[in-house]
Amino acid sequence: MSKQASNPKGTRDFLPFELSKRNYILDILKKNFQLFGFSQIETPALEKNTTLLGKYGNEGDRLVFKILNSGDKLKKADINSLKENKLPAFTNSISEKGLRYDLTVPLARFVSQHQNDIVFPFKRFQIQNVWRADRPQHGRFQEFTQCDADVIGSKSIIQEIELIKLYDKIFTELGFDDVVFKLNHRLVLKGLADYIGVKNNLNDFISIIDKLDKIGLDLVIKEIGDLISDVSISKLQKLFEDQTISIEKLSSILQNSSVAKNGLEDLRSIFEFFSSEKSLNNEIRFDLTLARGLNYYTGTIIEVASKTNSRLGSLGGGGRYDDLTSLFNMKDTSGVGISFGLDRIYLLMDEKNFFPEHLENSFDIIIINFGIKYLKKIFPVIDMFRKQNKKVFVYPDDVKLNKQFSYANKHNASFAVIMGENEFNNNEIIIKNMIDGSQLTYLLSKADSISF
Amino acid sequence: MSKQASNPKGTRDFLPFELSKRNYILDILKKNFQLFGFSQIETPALEKNTTLLGKYGNEGDRLVFKILNSGDKLKKADINSLKENKLPAFTNSISEKGLRYDLTVPLARFVSQHQNDIVFPFKRFQIQNVWRADRPQHGRFQEFTQCDADVIGSKSIIQEIELIKLYDKIFTELGFDDVVFKLNHRLVLKGLADYIGVKNNLNDFISIIDKLDKIGLDLVIKEIGDLISDVSISKLQKLFEDQTISIEKLSSILQNSSVAKNGLEDLRSIFEFFSSEKSLNNEIRFDLTLARGLNYYTGTIIEVASKTNSRLGSLGGGGRYDDLTSLFNMKDTSGVGISFGLDRIYLLMDEKNFFPEHLENSFDIIIINFGIKYLKKIFPVIDMFRKQNKKVFVYPDDVKLNKQFSYANKHNASFAVIMGENEFNNNEIIIKNMIDGSQLTYLLSKADSISF
Repeated sequence: MSKQASNPKGTRDFLPFELSKRNYILDILKKNFQLFGFSQIETPALEKNTTLLGKYGNEGDRLVFKILNSGDKLKKADINSLKENKLPAFTNSISEKGLRYDLTVPLARFVSQHQNDIVFPFKRFQIQNVWRADRPQHGRFQEFTQCDADVIGSKSIIQEIELIKLYDKIFTELGFDDVVFKLNHRLVLKGLADYIGVKNNLNDFISIIDKLDKIGLDLVIKEIGDLISDVSISKLQKLFEDQTISIEKLSSILQNSSVAKNGLEDLRSIFEFFSSEKSLNNEIRFDLTLARGLNYYTGTIIEVASKTNSRLGSLGGGGRYDDLTSLFNMKDTSGVGISFGLDRIYLLMDEKNFFPEHLENSFDIIIINFGIKYLKKIFPVIDMFRKQNKKVFVYPDDVKLNKQFSYANKHNASFAVIMGENEFNNNEIIIKNMIDGSQLTYLLSKADSISF
Repeated sequence: MSKQASNPKGTRDFLPFELSKRNYILDILKKNFQLFGFSQIETPALEKNTTLLGKYGNEGDRLVFKILNSGDKLKKADINSLKENKLPAFTNSISEKGLRYDLTVPLARFVSQHQNDIVFPFKRFQIQNVWRADRPQHGRFQEFTQCDADVIGSKSIIQEIELIKLYDKIFTELGFDDVVFKLNHRLVLKGLADYIGVKNNLNDFISIIDKLDKIGLDLVIKEIGDLISDVSISKLQKLFEDQTISIEKLSSILQNSSVAKNGLEDLRSIFEFFSSEKSLNNEIRFDLTLARGLNYYTGTIIEVASKTNSRLGSLGGGGRYDDLTSLFNMKDTSGVGISFGLDRIYLLMDEKNFFPEHLENSFDIIIINFGIKYLKKIFPVIDMFRKQNKKVFVYPDDVKLNKQFSYANKHNASFAVIMGENEFNNNEIIIKNMIDGSQLTYLLSKADSISF
């Protein structure tokens, strides 16, 4: 092979310096998920196409990576469909499985399949990769990590409150004090749609609002305007332009909608809960223009945004869905969940220097190599250091000292252990401080007194 | 959908009680990889077929899961190949990418691709899933986790020594004191092959020996017998039957082989290093019948087995490969690595009760729910407990007490926090010990004095 190999477009290799930062974020997520009583599960990357398809809309179906059947099953390829350009039918004839597209549909499948093995309410978190056959472009990947926490089997508004607290605690620990949690409610949007006369186009109404960040308010109003009367659209425009519109004010406007009333009641409970000073480190705000694109939401919806860097898009989002598991034949099981946008959080933390220094240091102590005879004598000390949870790198070859020290410096090692001929004969080691260059000599038998 | 959905055959859902045990093992692996100076990397699940194919033999090529090209690319399907039953050519026309089959070929691709971004010797570990289109059967999965630690860019025997120490430290921490590290060397096997007159069939010779555990010594001798003379095969049989054959004895038998001499020298250095008492907790043993199936090994080979449960097969294995990256156009880069068999280690630890109790407890403290008014008053205390790293589960609904307590017991919660009407009025909470049933009442303002 003459050309150098590379990873496929749209995928990423993670080198140690990147992975250590990603893991720093993920460790904070995991720890807090657990502190809030969530248990971790994992589902396979491979799911049956019957599980995946039909859940994400036509565009989603197209973006699911399909796995080619293997062996003789391939012979069942439906050539006629191919000739007639019926690609989905052709695909169907040679593929039974696909790659996980998100963590939500697998969760619904999991809960339905294992409903007798789990206790409800079931609080689970899941941190796994998902795959989408999007056209690769800057910042959009075909393989990326989703981090979800969901509660299945309780309608209590306490879940929404706990999830907001969880968001707040995690973003605070990551270093953020300037994110905003935007809240809205699908029933409020439904009441609003009724109020302005959007009849059977609720999903369109929501999809259009969801594009606000991309296309701006004027175009949103224009597109919704195609669905309703001129009088109605100016009412809507006024509401959307009033960025400080309160739940109370909206309640009086939508007072005839019993649907909206339930949604507003939920929101009121949440804001009432957080009304006291100091209950959250970040801001929480009602946002009537928050829609969230996914069809399965039925209740509260939430999105996290940076106040100082909104061009990045949302750092997380979630909401309540009352009927997701019914896709898999399990009825009346309300769920609510949130998700963290790992890549965007990473980018923003990197920009703001939120990562601790030297996160990627791969070791603390280097053992300078003068030959195997010397190493054998040092090894009991090496074992001891490792028992003390020091990361120790034994330089493998007895090459020139400056090469070994340069390797240590490139890895930000704090200390070097040196045993030359003299030290060998005297049963000693030298501990060199790699930052200030100072050296101290210790008897091997006293190595347990070394403090780093 | 009337039938309940399920995960595909050959894949697994991991429920919390299983995942907590798997993570217990993986955490010990990760910690020790880092203590030995290894840095973590990750590579994508998707690799180009040109990277994957041709590296694992014909059988391996067949077992790589191929991803179907999407969109219009599908139209390039080579129907003629299909009609002529040339399935690989047909596959090739509709698939450009596949799923990672192991972590070793991606490592070689990674090192070659990023050679200017990493410093050699490069010590990396990687814990990721791999996929193989094997026929699913008991204990064999299409999706499973590999855990590898490799050093690239050093020929020093210190690496082998460190990897054995790493194996020993990890298996000890997992609870094992009865595993054996079997060592052999590909150059010794090559010298042996020369000695008994296996000429151009070294790979066959190794493949046959590798089947020893499966087919037994008699059949191995019979199959090798087909390659060589009767005199030679009886010499080999004698050597293989002598389970205590020493490196010294073998050295004198193979004294005319300069190839074997180098291998024996490596082995001698390793055993010499570990000759002192107490240097390892588990046994290390020379095993002339250890072959390891993979073609890329060129030096030391190693395998870990349980002495008390050998039917399970090896718990790990590895070896040195001098030329793996040359697959990707990077020459003269020796590597050596080991791998851990997560599923088998899990099974054996489960059997031997090596897992700590209550690993799967999803929370420590339950907050009994009497209504949102009460919870609001308790929440500062909940926040405090979580800051103290207690896992706290707020029961979401104000249902009957016995239902809430039963939920707590199912999850092995240690404490319950109770605030009824009386406590609410007196600004108190009751802390109930869920194990002995005892209760203590605290003023909310004194909650920071509670010791669990």
